Amino acid sequence: MDSLTSPLHPKLSQMAHALRFLAADAVEKAQSGHPGMPLGMADLASVLFTRHLKYDATAPHWPDRDRFVLSNGHGSMLLYGLLYLTGYETATLDELKRFRQAHSRAAGHPEHGYMAGIETTTGPLGQGIATAVGMALAERLLNAEFGDDVVDHRTWVFCGDGCLMEGISQEAISLAGHLKLARLTVIFDDNGTTIDGSTSIATSDDQRKRFEASNWATIAVDGHDAQAIDKALAAARASDRPTLIAARTQIGFGAPTKVGQSVVHGAPLGATELAGMREKLSWPYPAFETPAELLAAWREAGRRGSATRGMWETRHAALTADRRAEFDRRQSGVLPDGLEAAVAAAITELTANPEAIPIRQGSQKAVGILAKHLPELVGGSADLTGSVLSKPAEMAGLDKTSFTGRHIPYGVREHGMAAALNGLALHGGFLPYGGTYLTFSDYCRPAIRLAALMGIKVVFLFSHDSIGVGEDGPTHQPIEHLASLRAMPGLRVYRPADQVEALECWYDAIAGKGPSVMIVARQKVPQARLALREDMPVRRGAYVISAADGERDLTLLATGSEVSLAIAAQKLLEGKGLKAAVVSMPCWETFELESAHYRREVLGEAPLFAVEAASPFGWHRYVGDDRRIIGIDQFGFSGPGPQVYEEFGLTPAKIAQRVADNI
Amino acid sequence: MDSLTSPLHPKLSQMAHALRFLAADAVEKAQSGHPGMPLGMADLASVLFTRHLKYDATAPHWPDRDRFVLSNGHGSMLLYGLLYLTGYETATLDELKRFRQAHSRAAGHPEHGYMAGIETTTGPLGQGIATAVGMALAERLLNAEFGDDVVDHRTWVFCGDGCLMEGISQEAISLAGHLKLARLTVIFDDNGTTIDGSTSIATSDDQRKRFEASNWATIAVDGHDAQAIDKALAAARASDRPTLIAARTQIGFGAPTKVGQSVVHGAPLGATELAGMREKLSWPYPAFETPAELLAAWREAGRRGSATRGMWETRHAALTADRRAEFDRRQSGVLPDGLEAAVAAAITELTANPEAIPIRQGSQKAVGILAKHLPELVGGSADLTGSVLSKPAEMAGLDKTSFTGRHIPYGVREHGMAAALNGLALHGGFLPYGGTYLTFSDYCRPAIRLAALMGIKVVFLFSHDSIGVGEDGPTHQPIEHLASLRAMPGLRVYRPADQVEALECWYDAIAGKGPSVMIVARQKVPQARLALREDMPVRRGAYVISAADGERDLTLLATGSEVSLAIAAQKLLEGKGLKAAVVSMPCWETFELESAHYRREVLGEAPLFAVEAASPFGWHRYVGDDRRIIGIDQFGFSGPGPQVYEEFGLTPAKIAQRVADNI
Repeated sequence: MDSLTSPLHPKLSQMAHALRFLAADAVEKAQSGHPGMPLGMADLASVLFTRHLKYDATAPHWPDRDRFVLSNGHGSMLLYGLLYLTGYETATLDELKRFRQAHSRAAGHPEHGYMAGIETTTGPLGQGIATAVGMALAERLLNAEFGDDVVDHRTWVFCGDGCLMEGISQEAISLAGHLKLARLTVIFDDNGTTIDGSTSIATSDDQRKRFEASNWATIAVDGHDAQAIDKALAAARASDRPTLIAARTQIGFGAPTKVGQSVVHGAPLGATELAGMREKLSWPYPAFETPAELLAAWREAGRRGSATRGMWETRHAALTADRRAEFDRRQSGVLPDGLEAAVAAAITELTANPEAIPIRQGSQKAVGILAKHLPELVGGSADLTGSVLSKPAEMAGLDKTSFTGRHIPYGVREHGMAAALNGLALHGGFLPYGGTYLTFSDYCRPAIRLAALMGIKVVFLFSHDSIGVGEDGPTHQPIEHLASLRAMPGLRVYRPADQVEALECWYDAIAGKGPSVMIVARQKVPQARLALREDMPVRRGAYVISAADGERDLTLLATGSEVSLAIAAQKLLEGKGLKAAVVSMPCWETFELESAHYRREVLGEAPLFAVEAASPFGWHRYVGDDRRIIGIDQFGFSGPGPQVYEEFGLTPAKIAQRVADNI
Repeated sequence: MDSLTSPLHPKLSQMAHALRFLAADAVEKAQSGHPGMPLGMADLASVLFTRHLKYDATAPHWPDRDRFVLSNGHGSMLLYGLLYLTGYETATLDELKRFRQAHSRAAGHPEHGYMAGIETTTGPLGQGIATAVGMALAERLLNAEFGDDVVDHRTWVFCGDGCLMEGISQEAISLAGHLKLARLTVIFDDNGTTIDGSTSIATSDDQRKRFEASNWATIAVDGHDAQAIDKALAAARASDRPTLIAARTQIGFGAPTKVGQSVVHGAPLGATELAGMREKLSWPYPAFETPAELLAAWREAGRRGSATRGMWETRHAALTADRRAEFDRRQSGVLPDGLEAAVAAAITELTANPEAIPIRQGSQKAVGILAKHLPELVGGSADLTGSVLSKPAEMAGLDKTSFTGRHIPYGVREHGMAAALNGLALHGGFLPYGGTYLTFSDYCRPAIRLAALMGIKVVFLFSHDSIGVGEDGPTHQPIEHLASLRAMPGLRVYRPADQVEALECWYDAIAGKGPSVMIVARQKVPQARLALREDMPVRRGAYVISAADGERDLTLLATGSEVSLAIAAQKLLEGKGLKAAVVSMPCWETFELESAHYRREVLGEAPLFAVEAASPFGWHRYVGDDRRIIGIDQFGFSGPGPQVYEEFGLTPAKIAQRVADNI
């Protein structure tokens, strides 16, 4: 934002000290926290926030602001200090004084939504840098749609050795370099220290060389030399590639005896050390007091972007009414008018034209229908586009030179993809999804958890969802994944039974709040939903898809590809004189939000049986008796899918027999 | 093994074609599988298996053999072809003809234990290379103990672009480079192709530069030039660092029209293409037929190592009786005599001297006791040694120059660590464990799953196991992790309640079969086990730790840090006139293997309540009524641990009230 010809703030080093003492004092008061990183990165943060970061603390949600991501989230006090000093309304001094106390906005790690200016939740290492790649990608994609006038910003990341040792950072770096996300800058806190001691205990990497191998520009800098930092940040802004700034710093800078040691990473300095630091840095002020002059300078820095934002508002206002409305709708996350009607019409058509197709193909159709109405839908896959069927014909593949096209080839980088999806959602303007096999949801899990924690709208698409995968064998046949995803708070887990349910699930996923997981079978199944249901019953989580012929003797609960098996078993049970109702249960979490009355109505009073080609774990919630849970409590094996199903007792005949034997 | 002065086998290219046709014919017959990689890597495999790999097909478990890992496991037919041609007994032609059929040893992906010579299960990309790092580390550690005479071998890995795009590969590469595992060679199938098409769609990495940044030697080679391959493999053997051989190959080499295209990756060639390939490579033989001369040449190659093995047997026999017995015991995985007695004595002592300490510290004590008797115990942590308390004083830290010391600093590489633990176990001679926080078990999950699938003995140690983590907040507070691990087949999940249970759990984990997860609380808890129980009741999975005073009115089921809460609640319930028994349930999986009689005896007939500071998911198995599961069905928050416990209703008073309200 600022030109290099204007001088640095004359009090800049003092301003950095203000950050340092806020951090050290808050950790000391809490008797818990991580002072080392804020002390070490305060100079870097000061130059960035007073000179280069485009933001306006009075308008934290300004769409064209730069994004700042603290990937080394344990240094949260650095961020809280910055937000307070620059004048973010929710970052009050009182909150900082309650650092790490129950329900403080200044939580142990930065939690998205707690304070404006926390662009993403961080703490699990490596997630921030990978999420930032999604933000930087979002910026380019949105820019391609709406132009430089309204979309023209950057993404800045602070990270430490820990983030760079995590494998996800490699996926992120490699993807960003490939896509040439030039507006992404990573500032590496190269302090030579981790929790266990010197980094030399565990790593010998040449980080610059590593980033260069992935097409990044790199700069080494003394992280305590403001002029040099300023020059490096300016160079990053001018680069045509993403940039790594490896900033040599001292962890715990200013702490008289603990500086440079791992002991300063994650524990309060202690009264004596902190007093010594006040002396050493000539800081006579009491805890939490920032001298008025320095606070004023920081507050001025926090409003640096106001004029820029004013010009942006003017350009935004100058958009045609349609374009402006669409831009604003996209930012707000409101779905376009007419979408629900279009979905309803498609459901009518799909119901009237039943097809036996793989459920993944039903999912692809659903995405195609949605994509026609939702320019914000951004898809992708981890090198399994044609297998997951993540890309409908209605969605063009990304052209990385123009950032047109909306299906992203994430490469074989499931974890990086999942975090990038989070970044796309957090940036605003997009409704992201990305696909891989269900068994590889394990690779994505840390990022899925962050999406659930933040409550952001992302759809994680997982195909090849059971032993139906067949020949690829047990490594590729999910067993415990449904249960392990259902166990996660804040996540809706969908498993549609056919193309109609697929569309309803997809619509429910994007019309609802928070993240969801869309789990679809690889194999072909008969259409289960043959009667038109205008109420989209999937949206209630479970419903009777095939009623008993008269009063029920039992109820079969099933999900996904097993719904049509259950319907076939229902017919066989009739021959055994047993009247079964079949309940399709595509989303437990939604069902649990329904009234007790509705749940009772669906589940009935008759004995319940569950049928799912997966671990029985969790099904006891609905079915008390082990013998009535028809699942798979072991790993699968390689063989043709139908044969594997047969051997695990998941055929209509075997299901019917098992039911008859155990009712 | 062979010197460069001896010529390559004159029929080597024909021998490679034999591999190619076995692979292509098997995939064709199965109408399922991945021909592209075997066709592309056959020349590399032929040079490796006829010239450099130290092995004896007639003695596949020879401890001093080289390990070969097919990280790109979808190319399984290459490995099966090699094992058949070189003469491994379990790799029969009949099995190859039943490739990908139910219960064939020639499964879709290589499954450890199905055929001798499959050193590890692969398929999930990146796992093989990271597992191989553990094997190469095991070799050096064992060498440091037993010397060059009996431990002197190498680890060879085949991998593709997919493996190298996975983040775990970076963790593996970085760790191997840091440890200078010079006997590790990775041969990269640089064919420029992935499932979605050209690698240029998704990656621009300079792999050689990337490996060099992590201290590897690198060599580029034409993967179809046997002389050049031979030279590169020899150079790798001479290197003082781990070596990457980037071998430029053509995917689907020999396929007349599909060569070089992604279509050849994962589908049968088709009859016409296969016939064309026979013509192009002048291979007039019918499917599955290898000309006698070539088969004989391969079989000879498979016995190349016999003389070397003979000399090894001589050296092994020359060890002193004690050393030989210990070497053999370590290889066989049998625990040493006297261990159980030592554990029993320690339990007596711990019971007699109760301490209120963090359970992680109880775990550390347990490991210390075991380490004194188990030289094969190899620990480590992902940069959280002092937090997880993974390193007892009895275990020295690794000295990477001498490979003495048995606690490995894995760095901030949880996933790489977990896979390396698998490699250490697979190699033989070691009983590995490694620690991080429970919330980061998500990062390890794909490797934990492989351990469970293979049934290998690894202990994954996870501390900081609940909201008791406190101030670090929801990213660091596990909620769903216990459930998601319990849902995984083949894995024992332990959650001990105090130092006595910690030792019993640790002993059960290492005395039993297969992998386990050891989950320990960060916070201090009172000792729950105060009466001496010589039967180590933890080994039955659950037991009455505190009986009701008379006939039970109810039973409290609890695990880990909540056992002492339940015991305190039991006392409060007495005041309310309710007689409760408290059952400690440290391992569900073991409990489920007990007799129905024992389970009934423990669980009793009275109403059951569960108390666990984690998701209720899964508890319905024991407790039918939601209101009786006292758990946490949402994410936690940052604040002092006791306060977070209080707010979630997990105090003795609140538990007692909840019980009284719902009985």
